[in-house]
Amino acid sequence: MSLGKNVTRIDAYEKVTGRAKYTADMLDKKMLCAKVLHSTFACGQVLSIDTSAAKALEGIVKIVTCFDVPDINFPTAGHPWSTDPAHQDIADRKLLNTRVRYYGDDIAAVIAQDEIAAERALKLIKVEYQEEKPVLNCEDALNAAKNGAPPLHERFADNVLAHTEIAEDKAFNEATSGTDLIKFEAVYETPPVQHCHIENCLSAAWMENGRLVVLSSTQIPHILRRIVAQALGLPWGKVRVIKPCVGGGFGNKQDALYEPLNAFLSMCIGGRPVKLELSREEVFRNTRVRHGEKITLCGWARPDGRLVARSYKVYSNQGAYASHGHSVTMKGTSVFKQLYHDEKAIKTSAWTIYTNTAVGGAMRGYGTPQAIFAIESHIEDMALKLGIDPIEFRLKNIMPVGYEDPFAKTKLRFDAFGQCIAQCKDYIKWDEKRARYAGQTGSIRRGVGMALFWYNTGVWPISLEISSCRMVLNEDGSVQTQLGETEIGQGADTVFAQMTASTLGLRFEDVHIISTQDTDTTPFGSGAYASRQSYVGGMAVHKTALILKDKILEAAEGYTKLPKETLDIKESQIVLKSGSNKSIVSLEELVTWQLYKMDGTGHITAEASVKASSNAYSFGCSFAEVEVDIPLAKTRLLNIVNAHDCGALLNPRLAEAQVHGGMSMAIGFGLSERLIYDEKTGRLLNGNLLDYKISTILDHPRLEARFVECFEPTSPYGSKALGEPPTVSGAAAIRNAVLNATGVAVNTLPLCPQNLFSAFKAAGLYKK
Amino acid sequence: MSLGKNVTRIDAYEKVTGRAKYTADMLDKKMLCAKVLHSTFACGQVLSIDTSAAKALEGIVKIVTCFDVPDINFPTAGHPWSTDPAHQDIADRKLLNTRVRYYGDDIAAVIAQDEIAAERALKLIKVEYQEEKPVLNCEDALNAAKNGAPPLHERFADNVLAHTEIAEDKAFNEATSGTDLIKFEAVYETPPVQHCHIENCLSAAWMENGRLVVLSSTQIPHILRRIVAQALGLPWGKVRVIKPCVGGGFGNKQDALYEPLNAFLSMCIGGRPVKLELSREEVFRNTRVRHGEKITLCGWARPDGRLVARSYKVYSNQGAYASHGHSVTMKGTSVFKQLYHDEKAIKTSAWTIYTNTAVGGAMRGYGTPQAIFAIESHIEDMALKLGIDPIEFRLKNIMPVGYEDPFAKTKLRFDAFGQCIAQCKDYIKWDEKRARYAGQTGSIRRGVGMALFWYNTGVWPISLEISSCRMVLNEDGSVQTQLGETEIGQGADTVFAQMTASTLGLRFEDVHIISTQDTDTTPFGSGAYASRQSYVGGMAVHKTALILKDKILEAAEGYTKLPKETLDIKESQIVLKSGSNKSIVSLEELVTWQLYKMDGTGHITAEASVKASSNAYSFGCSFAEVEVDIPLAKTRLLNIVNAHDCGALLNPRLAEAQVHGGMSMAIGFGLSERLIYDEKTGRLLNGNLLDYKISTILDHPRLEARFVECFEPTSPYGSKALGEPPTVSGAAAIRNAVLNATGVAVNTLPLCPQNLFSAFKAAGLYKK
Repeated sequence: MSLGKNVTRIDAYEKVTGRAKYTADMLDKKMLCAKVLHSTFACGQVLSIDTSAAKALEGIVKIVTCFDVPDINFPTAGHPWSTDPAHQDIADRKLLNTRVRYYGDDIAAVIAQDEIAAERALKLIKVEYQEEKPVLNCEDALNAAKNGAPPLHERFADNVLAHTEIAEDKAFNEATSGTDLIKFEAVYETPPVQHCHIENCLSAAWMENGRLVVLSSTQIPHILRRIVAQALGLPWGKVRVIKPCVGGGFGNKQDALYEPLNAFLSMCIGGRPVKLELSREEVFRNTRVRHGEKITLCGWARPDGRLVARSYKVYSNQGAYASHGHSVTMKGTSVFKQLYHDEKAIKTSAWTIYTNTAVGGAMRGYGTPQAIFAIESHIEDMALKLGIDPIEFRLKNIMPVGYEDPFAKTKLRFDAFGQCIAQCKDYIKWDEKRARYAGQTGSIRRGVGMALFWYNTGVWPISLEISSCRMVLNEDGSVQTQLGETEIGQGADTVFAQMTASTLGLRFEDVHIISTQDTDTTPFGSGAYASRQSYVGGMAVHKTALILKDKILEAAEGYTKLPKETLDIKESQIVLKSGSNKSIVSLEELVTWQLYKMDGTGHITAEASVKASSNAYSFGCSFAEVEVDIPLAKTRLLNIVNAHDCGALLNPRLAEAQVHGGMSMAIGFGLSERLIYDEKTGRLLNGNLLDYKISTILDHPRLEARFVECFEPTSPYGSKALGEPPTVSGAAAIRNAVLNATGVAVNTLPLCPQNLFSAFKAAGLYKK
Repeated sequence: MSLGKNVTRIDAYEKVTGRAKYTADMLDKKMLCAKVLHSTFACGQVLSIDTSAAKALEGIVKIVTCFDVPDINFPTAGHPWSTDPAHQDIADRKLLNTRVRYYGDDIAAVIAQDEIAAERALKLIKVEYQEEKPVLNCEDALNAAKNGAPPLHERFADNVLAHTEIAEDKAFNEATSGTDLIKFEAVYETPPVQHCHIENCLSAAWMENGRLVVLSSTQIPHILRRIVAQALGLPWGKVRVIKPCVGGGFGNKQDALYEPLNAFLSMCIGGRPVKLELSREEVFRNTRVRHGEKITLCGWARPDGRLVARSYKVYSNQGAYASHGHSVTMKGTSVFKQLYHDEKAIKTSAWTIYTNTAVGGAMRGYGTPQAIFAIESHIEDMALKLGIDPIEFRLKNIMPVGYEDPFAKTKLRFDAFGQCIAQCKDYIKWDEKRARYAGQTGSIRRGVGMALFWYNTGVWPISLEISSCRMVLNEDGSVQTQLGETEIGQGADTVFAQMTASTLGLRFEDVHIISTQDTDTTPFGSGAYASRQSYVGGMAVHKTALILKDKILEAAEGYTKLPKETLDIKESQIVLKSGSNKSIVSLEELVTWQLYKMDGTGHITAEASVKASSNAYSFGCSFAEVEVDIPLAKTRLLNIVNAHDCGALLNPRLAEAQVHGGMSMAIGFGLSERLIYDEKTGRLLNGNLLDYKISTILDHPRLEARFVECFEPTSPYGSKALGEPPTVSGAAAIRNAVLNATGVAVNTLPLCPQNLFSAFKAAGLYKK
């Protein structure tokens, strides 16, 4: 049984030796090269484009401008489709747009023999345009619209993509009317940040037999197929998407990026192969970002520390186009509602607002890191105000064991929070350090802080959860497992192989995973997002493996003349179910006999599709220890530990790797990362890996990952979300550690020297 | 309904524009290059190989000799495996062999950075060997063994690969004892010829995740996977074979050629990608040929033209290794047994004999063109001797309507022979010309001749007939159809698409065929051979489509609330079965609804595997008109027509193309093609396309194809063999036309000037 063991990633050798085939490895040298002309202003209208000089260059095959593209607005978000128009993503962009909505918007594209010719041509294209004043934050966008400025999108006259108010006013007013209540309100801000996956976004497209083929580094091949077809106005079956190895996505590749344009460009030249590779700078500027959010939180508590009411108001900066839009914002409100147990007296007000900045999309955590930063900072601040130990305050109000989400029926079954907290307290020596760090006065001070979170597994019941699997049995008893779910670096394929081996009774090495998705033949799956794959994909693997096992045992009945109900498969051998594990016949001999005998059924395969109708809570926390140099306004992270209840561990080493990666992102979000836009023009100022500071191994202390294994009964293998949760609570824990060290509540991320300096200064730390 | 219509080949555009991807198009520029060192003697032993000078060359990665390969004998024939050892193909070769068995045998291989380095290295390898006298024909091989010479293969001391005698002596002796019988005996000889597919044989191999991947231009991906694994001693699931577009095979690629060696070479260097491309000269010398055969026929007839007994003795020159071996020889005897109705009094003696010449393998017709040349020449000669019109003589003795093969239960249900003959007689104006050409005396004379044949469809009950299919339904109601059966240029994919559309009720353009086979994911099929694909593959398509249709109608029941039994699919619309074809809902709307609703089943696909347990006779004939220039010993083909009963025509235009191609091969076989070996050394003298004369469009008159559509009830779409039959009877028809023109029975193919001159001279045509 490989499940639960530290088997080595099945792609380890290929990836370490550089043999694994990524999109770039599959680009033909003879492919034409496309480059996009980006606007050099953030807001306005393209009046005309003169491509004559560019066209005259040698090596230019075709130039397409925003005046040449189909008049089709399409959505880009990587959600499964819905036939309910109210549930469909906003279709607010064309392939190229005459209305410019952010600095760098796509207004033309060049197809050339090579990159150099394409780059030269871009420089010769003359654009005549009418510029308008850009709006770069939510308040400005709302005000500008109120004052009659043209909105970003005609359909959204007030620049509000969506606005949702949830409140039970009567209960809320009653709860907050008590005169002994302590009320605390504060505003928390998080900046837009970028995913910084190692592999840039790229694709290639060509036509075969009258159909479009798109090769792309994507997390969502089947969804991308639909979006490309929608953008081009084609029947969906006329598009085929192929996904090779992917070098990270973190949600950025859970969107249709330049694939629809790439496909269109190929169509414009009779289906010749065209590649479209983004530079790192384009990835920063022109793909997606984590939404910058401004969250106002208010809480009311009794003096004994019992929360009676809370309100949450968020302005989420959508940027220029809808992408995942309001879904991300609403995910934050849902986290807010359930983490603490006061849901009868809560208010949420969620605003997703168009601005002339980079497009907010999906990013690992999907709105939760922003929300948890605000919620867990606010709860810490309240504890401080109430004079109650912050962990005690949390546990008094936390979602109680036995709690069931009234909508999704998701249930907290174990004391997951308590167990996670206990692990981290122990690791970081919480009680000892809280005592030791009390009352520091020097210029260098230390502190410890923590933050909690919960997370969903997949998107049901908000959206469709579908996953499908196919297994093909070989003559030697080995199996190919094929899913629509995608390996993007996280180790999914290894875990699917472990699941297959476990349910079928095969040796692990006898499972071969088909890592490349090809929508023509791959069973339908929605892809890598929402921490869904091992859960929903696991259901598909489980169901398929049971079908295959039954077929194998039926063949074994024919071979052994024993009733199949008495037979089982262990270590790739047919054995008696009740009895020793002595082999009656090897799977290899059985399958070879079965396939090659002249009569009977033919080859053995199995395929199954699952629509999930459950969800599972994933829980956890981060504890951090910091050293703050007050004169330098600098924070050094000394210690950090995450504890996760992600259900049963399918592969502890891979789980740990997931947590490490997420913690690293959380550290960057907490301490250093932010996209900086020129306040006047909206131009991105630090869109490259020199000026944008991601957290690297040099910035990290040991990243300690702890697990609490509460087997999840709705999950065939007992697992639940772990992909995104590790990113969620780290920044808040660091912020609370800084608060512990300095007494200063820093409410704006990241905790970089600039922000710390402002906060420390405002708090009077620099007064003589 | 596209079935039966002249829809354009689905791959026409891609192939005409050069976009279709063949193996060579998929070779990475960075791949290493392998070349094989071939022996420069035909028979003997390699004593030692000195590679030191070759290894010292720049760019040489590895050199492997016959002393380095696994000690595993493996079979190469592209037959489905059998678990019955008696039914398995002969395993008589290693990857490289120390015993040299033909001029050009493989004794070492070089892996280099590029072809030039590899070629240079080959020249520097020094081989020490002990040469023996080669045996180049069957009689010599038998005699040499009798005289104590070392046999080609130790296991076969008499050089006889196999020998089968079939005779019911009592019946035979009784039948031939009549004193009024006319007896006629003659010997007919056919030379070895080569397939001459446009695309040379080539492959590439590398390792991924500890498994071998082989990319090959092959007709038989699933069988090739098994053979590569056997040759390397690997579990079969550790090998993956990918087959892209194939530029013709004609049976040569129904064999494992250099793929096992190629795979081994990659394994020797840690799985790095290595390509192995044969030159045209290597294809001629080192792949496979049509067996040269020497057939002695004897017939006994009553004066009224009733045949009472026949005997058939064949020496089939196997060449150096077994390949398809005795199967090809035996196919000829089975054709002999059933074509004329005297099976109670027949004798067959079939010898397949190893010689030091090129390896006989599968070639379009699989032994039948040789046998039919002999049988139909002999029957013509007997008619002449009996003084009976040759067609009348044939029809008097032909397999009668209602005849059933006692073994396979295949049945002649209609007067197929009569109808085919009638069509051809009419086209070629037989009666008129037979009359006109009687009694010519000039030096340029004309004649008409004809020949009949029958052919099986697939290999059941001799071997396993298995085919599998999978269909994947897209949201727009279009379908991908995936089979293990291979398109190698013949149009199979187009016909499979027509079948899919027909059974599912789809528009033809809504069927997308997966043309590339990949043994990891492609349903198991045995591939393109034995004229089996539209028959057995058709069964798989039919079964799968019915399953898919049922699932679609089940979804339609959910959507329409009408019982599924009342519903049908027409032109991609759901309609009432009994009623007008008015659309209730489009398939597109139905499938999109079904897939994206939150509950219910997931994606819709279907997969099915079929083991056939039937066979079907295919029938036909060729009629030819020639002009013979006796002084120049030259034959000009003036007219040729083939008529075929291949059951229902699935695509008349593609059927016609099959016939045209087969007729062209038959003309080459009849008039110009033969491989010539040096009589002393066994070296192939004309192994290139300049010196080996294939028949081209410049040599052809109009190739007239006629059809008799006798719907085949055992076939889901009414079709039966057409792939190979067109090659079978043309050469005999031409030979009989020459006989008609000149009165000379030329019994050795081809009817090239050299052979005609000998025959004419022997017949006294050149006497003054």
